[in-house]
Amino acid sequence: MNLVFNKTELMDYLNEVFPQVRDDFSVDALGPGEVTMRLLVQDRHLRPGGTVSGPSMFALADVAVYALVLAHLGREALAVTTNASFDFMRKPENGRDLLGQARLLKLGRSLAVGDVLLFSEGKLEPVARSTMTYSIPPKRG
Amino acid sequence: MNLVFNKTELMDYLNEVFPQVRDDFSVDALGPGEVTMRLLVQDRHLRPGGTVSGPSMFALADVAVYALVLAHLGREALAVTTNASFDFMRKPENGRDLLGQARLLKLGRSLAVGDVLLFSEGKLEPVARSTMTYSIPPKRG
Amino acid sequence: MNLVFNKTELMDYLNEVFPQVRDDFSVDALGPGEVTMRLLVQDRHLRPGGTVSGPSMFALADVAVYALVLAHLGREALAVTTNASFDFMRKPENGRDLLGQARLLKLGRSLAVGDVLLFSEGKLEPVARSTMTYSIPPKRG
Amino acid sequence: MNLVFNKTELMDYLNEVFPQVRDDFSVDALGPGEVTMRLLVQDRHLRPGGTVSGPSMFALADVAVYALVLAHLGREALAVTTNASFDFMRKPENGRDLLGQARLLKLGRSLAVGDVLLFSEGKLEPVARSTMTYSIPPKRG
Repeated sequence: MNLVFNKTELMDYLNEVFPQVRDDFSVDALGPGEVTMRLLVQDRHLRPGGTVSGPSMFALADVAVYALVLAHLGREALAVTTNASFDFMRKPENGRDLLGQARLLKLGRSLAVGDVLLFSEGKLEPVARSTMTYSIPPKRG
Repeated sequence: MNLVFNKTELMDYLNEVFPQVRDDFSVDALGPGEVTMRLLVQDRHLRPGGTVSGPSMFALADVAVYALVLAHLGREALAVTTNASFDFMRKPENGRDLLGQARLLKLGRSLAVGDVLLFSEGKLEPVARSTMTYSIPPKRG
Repeated sequence: MNLVFNKTELMDYLNEVFPQVRDDFSVDALGPGEVTMRLLVQDRHLRPGGTVSGPSMFALADVAVYALVLAHLGREALAVTTNASFDFMRKPENGRDLLGQARLLKLGRSLAVGDVLLFSEGKLEPVARSTMTYSIPPKRG
Repeated sequence: MNLVFNKTELMDYLNEVFPQVRDDFSVDALGPGEVTMRLLVQDRHLRPGGTVSGPSMFALADVAVYALVLAHLGREALAVTTNASFDFMRKPENGRDLLGQARLLKLGRSLAVGDVLLFSEGKLEPVARSTMTYSIPPKRG
């Protein structure tokens, strides 16, 4: 699996196609088949009690694997989320960013699959795991 | 499966425990083992292109099944989402609310399971399906 | 969703491509978008304690949705299982066949999605639910 | 996560409670939070075309994570599979055993979660991934 974007190019590209992502996510690390994406936790990501909400964890997992797929496919690519699964295992810690460590398990012609572990920054045990599948439409001629 | 809330009591209870839900969701219909929950689609629920975002579909599925569980268990109950799966099958229609038709498949002592079909209002084919599992902690004595 | 096989044609076709299926499964009912598949429970499908095993439930769910997809696509079609999810909710009853009631939720050009409820024959509450996704490779010219 | 069984004790225990497992599975490696389980592939595990069948992959994933949970909980423990998800990504190689590399992500009082990568022996790319959840009933007093 060869990267076609470096970390800065990936972040630039995400900001370009998803301008609303700019304030919420940043790429901590990027390597072949692997990315660490950060959710810059703000009030709008929280649920009552002050922990990160389910929809915000969904967004982090989806952005992490989507960015990882694009970092290997480049600008012309499209990818549409077709399947997602989640196990919520521990409560996120209040007042900490959430990190998504994603790895690419398959990058085929029509399907890509990646999984993610989500951690509250500085903690060793994952708060959640997720698998995401993307359909990659054929390029138009 | 016997309901302990009617539709109004369920909506009141959700507004009480999740005040931020008030502007986003409403209960269209409630019966034994079944609920239809409406996402009152607003700009903040959209992704680029104007269709409902993945995190907003997650929120609708989770609120629908969570509300359905509470409508059968009542005020003292707690329920924590432990597993979620999604298949995204069609693009939601622009400019329409999203409806979640949920049914309760299991209401056990420690686990509840429900599934949901998500529809753009007025359309026959579902845009997504989801299954949600909740852990029900034992009541404190 | 239009069927291209009737019940007998579907059973004949399954027996032809999966001869080992003949002794294990039969089609109880088939309609547009819906099938009921029966697992003819035998000793080899059981786990210790005498209830139907997890792998046998997997096989029933997969055969049910696979058959449903083929009944709409016909003889030339290929379909490869890409994703499966299961919730095991109750213990199957000893000494009863297992029925899988499947419905087709999406039949696209490249992906098909169906879900299944599994019942011990004669019981009202499902023992399990499953969702299966198939990739449909393009036909060769 | 502390082991209460070593590799031999785990294999003995599995053979004792699941005698039918003896001919199908063996423990290649066991460590805190991790196990590698081998499916000793035989004709009955194959589908037409000679590759390992879906139900056999289900069995390997389930036995791997189940064994891993028991290796940490010991003889008195019960564990019931409640949820399973699978992504099938590549065709297994003909004529090779299948290895399941499982890790324990959560071992709580009432729920355990583990995930598994399945490999054809000697190959680097996984043929499938799976997540399994177990409910752990309270011990009787």
